[in-house]
Amino acid sequence: MSDYCVATYRCFDENANFHKKAQSIAVGLTVGSWTELPAAQQKQMEKHLGRVLSVEVSEPGAGQDGNAAGRYADIRIAYPDVNFSADIPALLVTVFGKLSMDGAIKLIDLQFSPAFASGFGGPKFGIAGVRDLLGVHDRPLLMSIFKSVVGHDLDELGRQFYGQAAGGVDLIKDDEILFENPLTPIEKRVETCMAAARRARETTGQQLLYAVNVTGPASKLAEQAKKAIGAGANALLFNVLAYGFDTMRELAADPDINVPIAAHPALAGALYPSPHYGIAASVLLGKLMRLSGADLVLFPSPYGSVVMPKAENMAIRHALVTEQLDGDYLYRAPDDAGAPRGPAPQLRTSFPVPSAGIHPGLVPWIIRDFGQDVVVNAGGGIHGHPLGTAAGGQAFRQAIDAVLEGRTLSAYAETRPELRAAIERWGAKE
Amino acid sequence: MSDYCVATYRCFDENANFHKKAQSIAVGLTVGSWTELPAAQQKQMEKHLGRVLSVEVSEPGAGQDGNAAGRYADIRIAYPDVNFSADIPALLVTVFGKLSMDGAIKLIDLQFSPAFASGFGGPKFGIAGVRDLLGVHDRPLLMSIFKSVVGHDLDELGRQFYGQAAGGVDLIKDDEILFENPLTPIEKRVETCMAAARRARETTGQQLLYAVNVTGPASKLAEQAKKAIGAGANALLFNVLAYGFDTMRELAADPDINVPIAAHPALAGALYPSPHYGIAASVLLGKLMRLSGADLVLFPSPYGSVVMPKAENMAIRHALVTEQLDGDYLYRAPDDAGAPRGPAPQLRTSFPVPSAGIHPGLVPWIIRDFGQDVVVNAGGGIHGHPLGTAAGGQAFRQAIDAVLEGRTLSAYAETRPELRAAIERWGAKE
Repeated sequence: MSDYCVATYRCFDENANFHKKAQSIAVGLTVGSWTELPAAQQKQMEKHLGRVLSVEVSEPGAGQDGNAAGRYADIRIAYPDVNFSADIPALLVTVFGKLSMDGAIKLIDLQFSPAFASGFGGPKFGIAGVRDLLGVHDRPLLMSIFKSVVGHDLDELGRQFYGQAAGGVDLIKDDEILFENPLTPIEKRVETCMAAARRARETTGQQLLYAVNVTGPASKLAEQAKKAIGAGANALLFNVLAYGFDTMRELAADPDINVPIAAHPALAGALYPSPHYGIAASVLLGKLMRLSGADLVLFPSPYGSVVMPKAENMAIRHALVTEQLDGDYLYRAPDDAGAPRGPAPQLRTSFPVPSAGIHPGLVPWIIRDFGQDVVVNAGGGIHGHPLGTAAGGQAFRQAIDAVLEGRTLSAYAETRPELRAAIERWGAKE
Repeated sequence: MSDYCVATYRCFDENANFHKKAQSIAVGLTVGSWTELPAAQQKQMEKHLGRVLSVEVSEPGAGQDGNAAGRYADIRIAYPDVNFSADIPALLVTVFGKLSMDGAIKLIDLQFSPAFASGFGGPKFGIAGVRDLLGVHDRPLLMSIFKSVVGHDLDELGRQFYGQAAGGVDLIKDDEILFENPLTPIEKRVETCMAAARRARETTGQQLLYAVNVTGPASKLAEQAKKAIGAGANALLFNVLAYGFDTMRELAADPDINVPIAAHPALAGALYPSPHYGIAASVLLGKLMRLSGADLVLFPSPYGSVVMPKAENMAIRHALVTEQLDGDYLYRAPDDAGAPRGPAPQLRTSFPVPSAGIHPGLVPWIIRDFGQDVVVNAGGGIHGHPLGTAAGGQAFRQAIDAVLEGRTLSAYAETRPELRAAIERWGAKE
């Protein structure tokens, strides 16, 4: 029984014979050489050989993807699982290690075989689990971000936290640039913020998750996470790309780290935006984040200040929330076509968190594009509210309620001063 | 006393006010807001504030860097060390976490403050230490790469190893896509290859380092490395970018991992080649590799099949071999200009290993560009030699000798059939 992971590349070249190039990738990144091998050795090596599944050449001007200028081909190659260990570093190094440096080429999709994916636990909570923790099943969640944290002390942090919590947000995340520091060390930060959460709960009646930023030496991250959890943390924030996907997987797989993990996309912009190089956002912030166990995944929204094209946002969403990650599409070796095979493992889904530049007036668009399984996430759109931070959170909750009730924001705002003030400040998309 | 790390960005925008943008980066990625703060708070927050050091705007057509089309600015910003912990993930997330996703912007340089760099041990061996291990001080080193390894057994691996070793190479590295596998598990692989090295030594009289690929779950890498060392490994290969720089640093800092580490650039092409996005090769494969402790660093040469522009190669070289990493250039806060300060820590140098498409005829260029402190690294240029693998190594050693003796390759080849055959096959640059 042969299982294969499938990589799709977009490869730019004015003159290349893309079919030949595809063949040379499939051979070069697996068995090294093929046509020179004696028949007996070919027989023996066949299970290690990469397979070209398809080559779609796009000539300039012929209805090309808007981002991609020039002549290119989308090349799909299947790599036998038997060639690499069942971990993300091994898969990435195999399919895009050396190849990433070989001219203008971008990894635009990656499909995991059932056997490969079965080695991963995925998110420990996922969308359903996070909802259960919060007791919220019937609406999008609302997350807020601290405003300024660097250089502030615990008192100021607690004040900021309480202001956000009082507005009815479901999750509050640390700033990703808040590291271990003498003013707000992780345990004290957790104690201060969780105390503020309890105070806010007396008026809001709401559960709240605080995602505290886990940082420091790679081998001490699990320890740091457990320290935070010991101090009362009920969620974690993690800069996945600064540490690698396997470290993310290990945190998620650790039985003692029994809280949801929010993956921050810091550094992702070094990898996904170029049409000619790097790794597509749907792979980087979609499939690999879910596979490695992120319960929530932040990424730049197509609405706000840090813009990602909407199609890429939707591809990330699909990777995070579709029931069966890569259940369709999979390649099987010809000799294996009739063999019975178990179903692909069902990884829990991850909450998409489109972020940056979000204000209440964008909520109708967010729900239109993402449905209810989304986390509406705001910083300036909460802290910058004309009536204060708590009103900022309330305005978002009102905007969410309006959309779920099928009302327009402006109609709903008539009797709700918080939403009205937000719309006056930032406008509304309906 | 304030210490600052300095990031230089190339930022593309047709219309932006780059001075304003620089200011907003310096504030936004540090204290969050500034002009709105009351004077008393400004005083308190000043030590956390990022500083714009310079903004050089380049208008289209005005003698621009060849790679960069359109209007851009090179922006230098100093970030106070007090804002982040002294580790590479924290520095990268601070200076390029969110910013990487903010339009067309590339991190083109990163300068470490002495205080920041002093937290790093750097390479444990470095150029001098690797030379001492090999007993070779008067010439460039020669490294070779296995040909096909996936799907082969220990016998075949041992045969390939012996062929390479017999040709007089100084180092042999695993293929970076050879992971832990039942045919050639790491300990058996080390035993087999080191035995082949001892056999070859009987004829060559040479020491040889075998860099075995350390792979697997992130938290088990150190254990895996020690297993390999226990079995006799005298060097390691590591896919740094698949695991992150801090994991590299931890391996290099581990007192029980007392062998040189060669850093493979796998996946680097997803980050450095675009002029508009990502992280420059000199930062990624130069400064950060040395800081995190790589004794040898592989990267695509400007000569061969996988091409990097020569200026980038030279920038990598400078970062790896210059005596004092970022000793000049450093920014100090104005209030601190007269204060005494210790010298920047002296990190050991790292061996540059320009790779891919190298044949003996390129040796004069390699030595002209890199000097003697370089590792000449070849795969096909050794295995593909018309007279066999051992002759391939010999041809390289002869090419190196020729250059050091000030002879042309063609003259030197007259009495040396191995070099002659190589030149006939691949040509020579003189």
